[in-house]
Formats: sequence, C-alpha cells, structure tokens
Amino acid sequence: MLTYIFVIAITAEAMSGALAAGRRNMDLFGVALIAFITALGGGTVRDMLLGNYPVTWTQHPFYIYITIGAGLFTIIIAKYMRKLNRIFLLVDAMGLVAFTIIGCNVAMKLDYTLPVVVMAGIITGIFGGILRDIMCNRTPLVLRHELYASVSFIVANFYLLLIYFEVDENLTLVLPFIVGLSLRMAALKWKWSLPVFTYSPDRWDN
Amino acid sequence: MLTYIFVIAITAEAMSGALAAGRRNMDLFGVALIAFITALGGGTVRDMLLGNYPVTWTQHPFYIYITIGAGLFTIIIAKYMRKLNRIFLLVDAMGLVAFTIIGCNVAMKLDYTLPVVVMAGIITGIFGGILRDIMCNRTPLVLRHELYASVSFIVANFYLLLIYFEVDENLTLVLPFIVGLSLRMAALKWKWSLPVFTYSPDRWDN
Amino acid sequence: MLTYIFVIAITAEAMSGALAAGRRNMDLFGVALIAFITALGGGTVRDMLLGNYPVTWTQHPFYIYITIGAGLFTIIIAKYMRKLNRIFLLVDAMGLVAFTIIGCNVAMKLDYTLPVVVMAGIITGIFGGILRDIMCNRTPLVLRHELYASVSFIVANFYLLLIYFEVDENLTLVLPFIVGLSLRMAALKWKWSLPVFTYSPDRWDN
Repeated sequence: MLTYIFVIAITAEAMSGALAAGRRNMDLFGVALIAFITALGGGTVRDMLLGNYPVTWTQHPFYIYITIGAGLFTIIIAKYMRKLNRIFLLVDAMGLVAFTIIGCNVAMKLDYTLPVVVMAGIITGIFGGILRDIMCNRTPLVLRHELYASVSFIVANFYLLLIYFEVDENLTLVLPFIVGLSLRMAALKWKWSLPVFTYSPDRWDN
Repeated sequence: MLTYIFVIAITAEAMSGALAAGRRNMDLFGVALIAFITALGGGTVRDMLLGNYPVTWTQHPFYIYITIGAGLFTIIIAKYMRKLNRIFLLVDAMGLVAFTIIGCNVAMKLDYTLPVVVMAGIITGIFGGILRDIMCNRTPLVLRHELYASVSFIVANFYLLLIYFEVDENLTLVLPFIVGLSLRMAALKWKWSLPVFTYSPDRWDN
Repeated sequence: MLTYIFVIAITAEAMSGALAAGRRNMDLFGVALIAFITALGGGTVRDMLLGNYPVTWTQHPFYIYITIGAGLFTIIIAKYMRKLNRIFLLVDAMGLVAFTIIGCNVAMKLDYTLPVVVMAGIITGIFGGILRDIMCNRTPLVLRHELYASVSFIVANFYLLLIYFEVDENLTLVLPFIVGLSLRMAALKWKWSLPVFTYSPDRWDN
C-alpha cells in the first residue's frame, strides 16, 4: 500500500515542482528537471546522507518517467489547477506522510539511532520541496507557512512510538496517515502555523 | 582525446563561474570557489549520486589547480571577454558534450540502467552551471535559455544509440560532438529554445 | 580539547543560522533546521564528498540536540545579540579554525592527497555558512566580506606545514588557533578583505 501512495505522492510533488518552475518561466526541460528533483530529491538527499547506495530512484526507472511525465502533464492542466487545489493539497499531504514513513524505514533498516531515523523521515518528507525552492531561487516555503515540516516531525515520532509499542502492523501504517492528514488539513483550514521568528538588525553578524 | 577536451572544458566552465561570481562582486576567494564548483560540481554531484567513490577530482589535484587558476586568470582578462564571446561559447558547448559523454561512461561502468545513464550524462553536463547559479543566487540559466540542457539530453541518447549499434569507436566519440556542437551553435544563432511554461496564479500551492 | 571547541563552535554556528532564518521570518521549525544545517552542514558535505560514511553527526545525536537547542535558544536572546556581538564573532572565528582543522584531519585519515586535505578543511570551515545563505536565499556572505574563507585556507595550510615539520603536537593545535583568530579579528577590526572582482556586462555568457 505504501508503494501505491508513494507513486501518487511523487506525482503530486512533481506537479508542485512543475508549477514552481512555471512561475520562473522555465522551459520544458527546466519543468521536467524541477519536477523530478521536487519528487525524488528528498529521498536522494536521504540516501546520500545515510550512505544508502544505490540511491532508490536509480533502481526504479519508472520513478524517473512518472515524475517527468507528471511535470510535463502539469503544463497542459495548469489552468485547471486552481479548481483542483483542494485535491492537490490532500495528495500533497499524503505524500508528506508517506515520504516521512518511508524515510524512517530506510534509516531503521540501516540501524541508525532514533534521532537520525526521525531526521531521515523529515528530510525525505520536506527536502524535495526545499530543493525545488532553492532551484527556483526563493526562500523555502516549507519553513515558513502553515504547519508542514512540523507535520513530518510529528508523524515520524508518532510512527516510531507505534513501532516501539508493537502496535498491529496495519494500524502502525494507517494511524500516522490519519494523524498527519488531519493535522495538515486542519492547519490549512484554520491557518495554524508555528510562531515565526523575526529578526532585523542593522548589520552585525558575518 | 576526451581527456584533452575535458581539461579545455573545465577551463571554460571555470571561467563562466568566475564571471558569474564577478557579477555578484565576490572576492578572489569567492571567484576561485565558484570557478571550481562550476567546473567540477557536475561531476561531483554525479559521483555522489551514483556512489562513485572516490569522487573524480579528489584523485586529480591538477583539476583543482586548473579550475582555480582559470577562475583567477579570468579576472585579468575579463575586459576582453566580450570579444572572446564566440570562442567562449564554442568551448562551453564542447564542454557540455564532453561532460555528457563522460557522465554516461561513468554510469555505464557502474552498470546502471539506461535511464540512469542518461540522467548521469545530463547531470554531469548541466549541474555545474546549476550550482554556479544557486551559489550566485539566481535562477539557473540552463533551464531557461537557448537549448542547452536539451543538447545534453540529445547527445546522451545519441551516444548510447551509437554504442548500442556498435558503431566504430572513434565515430561514437566524434559524431555526438558534431551533433551536439551543431545543435547548440544553431540554437544560439537562431535563438532556438524550448517552449516556456509560464504560470502565475495568485497563491494556492504550498 | 578540539572536541570542546567543536561543541562551542557548532553552538555559535547554529546561532548564526538561527539569526539568518529570523531575517527571513521563518517559523520555529525553519529556525531549528537552518541552525542545524549551518552548524553541521559543512562537515556533512565533507563526509559525503570524501565518502566518509557514516556521516559524523549521525553517530552523535548530541550534536543534533545542541544545534537545534542553540537555534531555538537564539530566538529568546536575539535582542541581546548586538551586545554579545564581539563575543559571538570571536566564538565564530574559533569555530572556523576548529572546523578547518577537523576537516583536514578527516581527509588525512582517509589518505587523500594534500590539495584534497586543504579543500576538506575549507569545505568543513565554510560550507555550513554557504548552505545557510543558500537556504535563506542570499548570496553567500563568506565569499564577499572580511577575510573569512581565506582564514580557513591559511589555517589549513599552516596546520599541514606544522604536521609536515613534526612540530610538537600541542603546538600544532594551538598555533593555528593563534594565527587564525588573530587574522580574523584583525580583518574584522581593520576591515581587511580580499580584492573584489566586479563584472557587469550587458549580456553575453550563457
């Protein structure tokens, strides 16, 4: 099941990448590349960080095709994207949860300690979006808007708690989705966000 | 022969990096670093992605010296760069083709599948320029201007086709250069570019 | 001793990251992440580049906690940071020297050649700050301001020279700190900086 959700998730992430590329007037190639990086960049950074070679997508050419395909397809349906907004945000939230769980699993299989497992989950969850924003020359949105990265953090910890208490395997997968999706959707609806830190000195640090 | 072209290519890439650093008023150290990253960053990302350790340039100190040297030398000759523009663009295009072919070779030697080999070629070809632009805080040019990344894509596929049909070894090397250079030079001359995707909603995605 | 200084240094770097995040109005999560990346990003890039797995911080959860803790703590004491400016700059300079030496040591242990050892030292010293600036969407300051990256370069070479001449072990550690700190503090006081390369053509390179 996680694999199916993963494929849906990378499709959604690829589309979000394509739209960001469109805001920067990139050409077809740029759209395809940003879509690919947004969808698979988080997992790639995680794999490189944990020394988990070969990097996952290099063993699944299908992931390359689906993300590039989704990116280019987005160009065609871009004008309907506003109407699809709600579905899109839901799929994106599913992706965030799926990515986080998969990231935790990878790190656990490699016997990393708990804090690293949590970090691996978060990195898988949010780094695709961070790379997207870096490549589109804007400050990463996931670090500023409605609860997003925090959802990944909570899901990772909740998931590990369920594993620790040896909860039924299906529940261990389903519950984080329920918690993560509810939290993210509620955050979007009621504009929940973390406190923001604003700092504006004249000039002093290097 | 590929090695000679590679050295010429990293020199050209280093110079392009130095000029980008100059536009951001960087100091000598910044110029040297950006030159180095522009020239060798693509191969570095490829090596780290494919798990191809040790990373190539760490085994060839000469590459470090030549790129840093070329970067600093660019400061001296910057005022003549406009006159050298045409030569520069030609050498840059040679670099793009050489990088792409070398990237494909590295991935093939590690037994990656075809789509990954193509990706490795493209990444080697264009990621130096992408890193340069990220470090100089601008949207990557290679994803927006006249055919550039696409040339890398076409060269990679053409090169693999020649290998597949077991074409004579020299031709397998020479033909991609002819195709790649012609295409890139034609694109520059007649301003060929891929269709651009422009997307400008009010605000809706995360 | 180097370990103590390292912990102090990552604390200082984390704080500098948190302040940069504050300038971009990031939320608590963003502050924590940027603090973490600023403090440990340089070593991470070095480890990934040299194939030094597992990456250092993954084996020391304490480093994760201290950097994130320091980042969040910075929010509380931000208003006093201007008064602490001088101490902060001193600690930051200590960090630069400590990071550089540690980076050199890691590369030497892996039997890399001298130029790579120097590069590893510099990367460890300055890449945390570069990643911080990239993630906060600004041109890396370390490549533009008062001698900073150059201090790392000089310290790395000086340190290797002391090792080459088999100077007493304690001196080999203390002298680079004296040289590095003096140089950095003098650069800050008298506004020493490297010559800047300014290049502003109309438009010509790719």
